[in-house]
Amino acid sequence: MAERGTRSDRPARERVLEAALDLFAEHGVSGTSLQMIADRMGVTKAAVYHQFHTKEDIVFAVVGPALDRLVEIADAIGGEPDQERRFTATLAGIIDLIITHRRLAAIVQFDPMVARLVRGHPAHASFERIRALFTGPDPDGSALVAAAMVSGGLIVAGVDPALARLSDDELRKHLFDTAARLLRPLPGVPPATA
Amino acid sequence: MAERGTRSDRPARERVLEAALDLFAEHGVSGTSLQMIADRMGVTKAAVYHQFHTKEDIVFAVVGPALDRLVEIADAIGGEPDQERRFTATLAGIIDLIITHRRLAAIVQFDPMVARLVRGHPAHASFERIRALFTGPDPDGSALVAAAMVSGGLIVAGVDPALARLSDDELRKHLFDTAARLLRPLPGVPPATA
Repeated sequence: MAERGTRSDRPARERVLEAALDLFAEHGVSGTSLQMIADRMGVTKAAVYHQFHTKEDIVFAVVGPALDRLVEIADAIGGEPDQERRFTATLAGIIDLIITHRRLAAIVQFDPMVARLVRGHPAHASFERIRALFTGPDPDGSALVAAAMVSGGLIVAGVDPALARLSDDELRKHLFDTAARLLRPLPGVPPATA
Repeated sequence: MAERGTRSDRPARERVLEAALDLFAEHGVSGTSLQMIADRMGVTKAAVYHQFHTKEDIVFAVVGPALDRLVEIADAIGGEPDQERRFTATLAGIIDLIITHRRLAAIVQFDPMVARLVRGHPAHASFERIRALFTGPDPDGSALVAAAMVSGGLIVAGVDPALARLSDDELRKHLFDTAARLLRPLPGVPPATA
């Protein structure tokens, strides 16, 4: 790691990331250049380059914390022997992650460049472990589709204009209840205890 | 309309659209240029320009038929007085549309440029009418999240690698059953009759 992110650098770094996230939403990741980020900030491209040498660096700075958290959630699965608590904690953790990054999920999820970057990140395997927890072992077509609907719903939740009026707490509760309603009936997933 | 799409032009037009769809999947719509499409086809940019003058024209040619079909599905809602048949036919129509365009939905759904184009298309209002049919009138947070989860799931179904091994018929059946399981319990949506 280069010596970035010292206290005096932080505001400039964060302004780059904010401008980048705005532009990703407007033009897609692939349609955003370092020059566009500089123009949006009213600085030179060299000033952006001082913080990040490539767009890949910026994308990783934007999505990295969310990917790291996804790995933590998946790693916690093995440490929780109780089946019901394991399911509940994992689903709640994923939903918290989505809500913390409401704008981010859909903006980057379907971007081909981001997809290529994520394929090389440990979060890719973590995502598969979490999906396996949700579907149970050897899922049939019905279980696979239920899991795909849950993950699709979680991904779009942050950008669906119809959901914009829900508070974070309302969104968290309804996402949990709706996802549980789809997943609980699957074999290998604990039924609700209440 | 210019005189495009005559029988002799058709293969060249279709080859442009195929190359464009491949590149959209690899680089996003915003990250794809007419020059990249020409390079992929091994022709000059002028040859692409002979078929389509702007990238917007290509995007509309790619997504237009699906948007037109969405409008037809929404228009049929008013002509079906039976509540149960209205729900079933609309959901089945949307799922058929998704399956016919398995690759297309997620590639273009979250692209900011496509989103801007769709906002000016009648399909935008059709989408809202279909959502209102699915949630019932005055939906609460729970109904909105259920509908968001269904639409998110339908959108990702075509590109989720875990679903790639399902045939079109399996995917159609499981998407219908899973979506109905989420939507049927909502007030204003008919319960299953079987």
